[in-house]
Amino acid sequence: MPNAAATVVSRLRAIVGDANVLTAPADVEAYVNDWRGRYHGTTRAVVRPATTQQVSEVMTACADASVALVPQGGNTGMCGAATPDASGEEVVLSLARMRAIRGLDAANATITAEAGVTLAAVQEAAAQAGLLFPLSLGSEGSCTIGGNLSTNAGGTAVLRYGNARDLVLGIEVVLADGRIWNGLRALRKDNTGYDLKQLFIGSEGTLGIVTAAVLKLFAAPRTRVTALAAVVDVSHAVALLRAMKQALGDRLVGFELVSGVALQLSRKHHPDLPDPLPGHPWYALLQIDDSASDAKLAALVEGALAEAVGGGVAVDATIAQSHEQAQRLWALRDNISEAQRREGPNIKHDISVPISAIPAFVDDTAAAIADAFAGAQLVVFGHLGDGNLHYNVAAPPGVEAQSFLSRTRQVNRLVHDRVVAAGGSISAEHGIGQLKREELAHYKAPLELELMRRVKAALDPRGLLNPGKVL
Amino acid sequence: MPNAAATVVSRLRAIVGDANVLTAPADVEAYVNDWRGRYHGTTRAVVRPATTQQVSEVMTACADASVALVPQGGNTGMCGAATPDASGEEVVLSLARMRAIRGLDAANATITAEAGVTLAAVQEAAAQAGLLFPLSLGSEGSCTIGGNLSTNAGGTAVLRYGNARDLVLGIEVVLADGRIWNGLRALRKDNTGYDLKQLFIGSEGTLGIVTAAVLKLFAAPRTRVTALAAVVDVSHAVALLRAMKQALGDRLVGFELVSGVALQLSRKHHPDLPDPLPGHPWYALLQIDDSASDAKLAALVEGALAEAVGGGVAVDATIAQSHEQAQRLWALRDNISEAQRREGPNIKHDISVPISAIPAFVDDTAAAIADAFAGAQLVVFGHLGDGNLHYNVAAPPGVEAQSFLSRTRQVNRLVHDRVVAAGGSISAEHGIGQLKREELAHYKAPLELELMRRVKAALDPRGLLNPGKVL
Repeated sequence: MPNAAATVVSRLRAIVGDANVLTAPADVEAYVNDWRGRYHGTTRAVVRPATTQQVSEVMTACADASVALVPQGGNTGMCGAATPDASGEEVVLSLARMRAIRGLDAANATITAEAGVTLAAVQEAAAQAGLLFPLSLGSEGSCTIGGNLSTNAGGTAVLRYGNARDLVLGIEVVLADGRIWNGLRALRKDNTGYDLKQLFIGSEGTLGIVTAAVLKLFAAPRTRVTALAAVVDVSHAVALLRAMKQALGDRLVGFELVSGVALQLSRKHHPDLPDPLPGHPWYALLQIDDSASDAKLAALVEGALAEAVGGGVAVDATIAQSHEQAQRLWALRDNISEAQRREGPNIKHDISVPISAIPAFVDDTAAAIADAFAGAQLVVFGHLGDGNLHYNVAAPPGVEAQSFLSRTRQVNRLVHDRVVAAGGSISAEHGIGQLKREELAHYKAPLELELMRRVKAALDPRGLLNPGKVL
Repeated sequence: MPNAAATVVSRLRAIVGDANVLTAPADVEAYVNDWRGRYHGTTRAVVRPATTQQVSEVMTACADASVALVPQGGNTGMCGAATPDASGEEVVLSLARMRAIRGLDAANATITAEAGVTLAAVQEAAAQAGLLFPLSLGSEGSCTIGGNLSTNAGGTAVLRYGNARDLVLGIEVVLADGRIWNGLRALRKDNTGYDLKQLFIGSEGTLGIVTAAVLKLFAAPRTRVTALAAVVDVSHAVALLRAMKQALGDRLVGFELVSGVALQLSRKHHPDLPDPLPGHPWYALLQIDDSASDAKLAALVEGALAEAVGGGVAVDATIAQSHEQAQRLWALRDNISEAQRREGPNIKHDISVPISAIPAFVDDTAAAIADAFAGAQLVVFGHLGDGNLHYNVAAPPGVEAQSFLSRTRQVNRLVHDRVVAAGGSISAEHGIGQLKREELAHYKAPLELELMRRVKAALDPRGLLNPGKVL
């Protein structure tokens, strides 16, 4: 008699149908490798349920057979959390077929979407109702709500709207034993016991499988201003952020820091892009929105920036005069990562520190890198409004890329030691997955790791959900 | 040899000093009764530590002796969560001496306060730095940050700023075994594993003792408009809310619903208060803030309200022309509870439902109450912007109050059945404590109660923290 693990695939076929259990190498290839090509696994089968009930039955079948399960959304993660291990024993559970928008309640300003709905589809449904779902990421065309919640995704509007966690009112979860917890509440206030949804958000599929969520919607912006300011150093960028927050309040939706090096790198590979304030060491890119259609927003922003320049906070500033100009300013920022890739490999860090600590952190870390790796190129940019920097280090000129990459661990420690010393986080918005599991064990206080393990044991005592990720 | 429980008080004296261990009945009286006089307990001792280290040692001493502990902040709760039981075995841990503001970081827009700091003191410290801490409650002069976080307090600015949970970046917690978890991070983005702080926020002292917190601050408002609008029914109030959200965006900080009955009751006991829009069945009280000092806020609000009246959404509206007029409009709202108390006892409910479901809920529940208790008086008001109503029922004229109160359970079930049928919460902002423990067990799904118990067992396996509360 075959054992339970050997027969689990046929049981999965009975649940979702043969067409939705993939086992042929060509069929599973897109599911067992991450999109950046950094993580490669194998799998017993990829199973594609279409309903919460099917997810529940799949989880039950796997639990009965003691087979571990890797939940996967759009497979756009940065840390390998959705890639199975090399054992070939794990089942990949793709939520991609769960793409129903179950409802949109305009008066309550909420939308209920299944896990496999893409972020762009949620944004679009909200826009059609005259509302805004503010989460916004580079991968929004293919990343899914389930993945956004499981990783507590960040993005460019966190300054005003918060992370994914802050946009969730309720969730539906399949637990490690296959039972379904219906926590799909659409309430802005509910103090009836422990807020269990918080456990599943950001836990990267290690505590339960998010199958649907109730998300908050907001008044859609009717006017928008995009501006670029030049500053002499990072501490002036921090001062500018503070001045703009006071002058513009909640209208300030995005405040991105871009180093002069990063901006010129972007222009090197996109020479058609503008260089409206040439020759400065640091820039801030601002997005300012207002839901009122007749707000005198441009005048308000102009006045605030003029005051900042007059007061010596900023050196110069410019406001986009058209939607196209605004898009080209954003393209300067958005093309940095691609431009870096074209320049060659680099060692990336997704870090946060208190905003007040950023100037000293940037200076100290640059000096330490210059000491240890003379000539190494720093490309620094990110969401200053959230204290979140993408801090990337490329090889010095003349140093072979692979030889530099072989020192990744040393570079990571140099950067992360300073992050932690400044009270910061070694993963601001990308999560842990496989990539930073060892770093997490190194930097996190033992007591906090112990508490995390106790929570894991309480919700997934047999360790069937996404083993080898996070903890 | 005396057992450990018998000697625990002397051990507590050694930790905090004799003066901070209270046992005389007159000394403990203020700690063993709740402020509304509904809950009465007894205690082995009230212990008043001044530092996190002392809290840790107190917890350790109690754990060694298997003595249960009841954490207490300002003792302003509505549900008896901070009152010990009648056994005389429990120790009350008052955080009132932990009142240091450990730091305020204006550039990071954060404040770090110990648990015993009053909400008003945090607001004041923020204001002195030109910033805003937006949590605002009736009891803000005496309630404490520790209690605010432990109950996930709500209040009048949730529409814009969220509940207490949404205002927290980090916490420090003494665990059930006495160890200190330092989670005092001041980061807006941190995706390094499970977000453990969420477990302790809103768990009413049953999972750990919050000793300090890092809180978010915001740009201070520089302009404010207060307005009153009259509407024909609750569905028009919901439509007005939606229109104002679109027109005013994040400037809309408060949107309170007040029934004509509630407003007239308030005026009956405060005849000096204005009646600017007399004779309507329902009112909305709006607060609109802007951080820009030169915002044309009054004109914007006037335009939006004129459009609402022109479009038949509101019947009439008025804008306060001075700070004093604004205060008097708010006094109409703020005096409702006191006016009700003067009229006699009533059966209160702190409920929420999706905003879109409020009109039908209000109509259906009023009809059901009229059926079951002909002539019963409804006083309905609350935070419509959050879907949160204070739904209070007083005895019909001529019915003796005590006889009506004896039917509290029946009234509760009548109201709460309809709340739950509408997808709502039987405790929107006040929590569970002792008051609603039985209601929670009745209405919460067994699976959710089981998950809550598993979390409790993971963090407080011996049940030493605030037993008999929540679960």
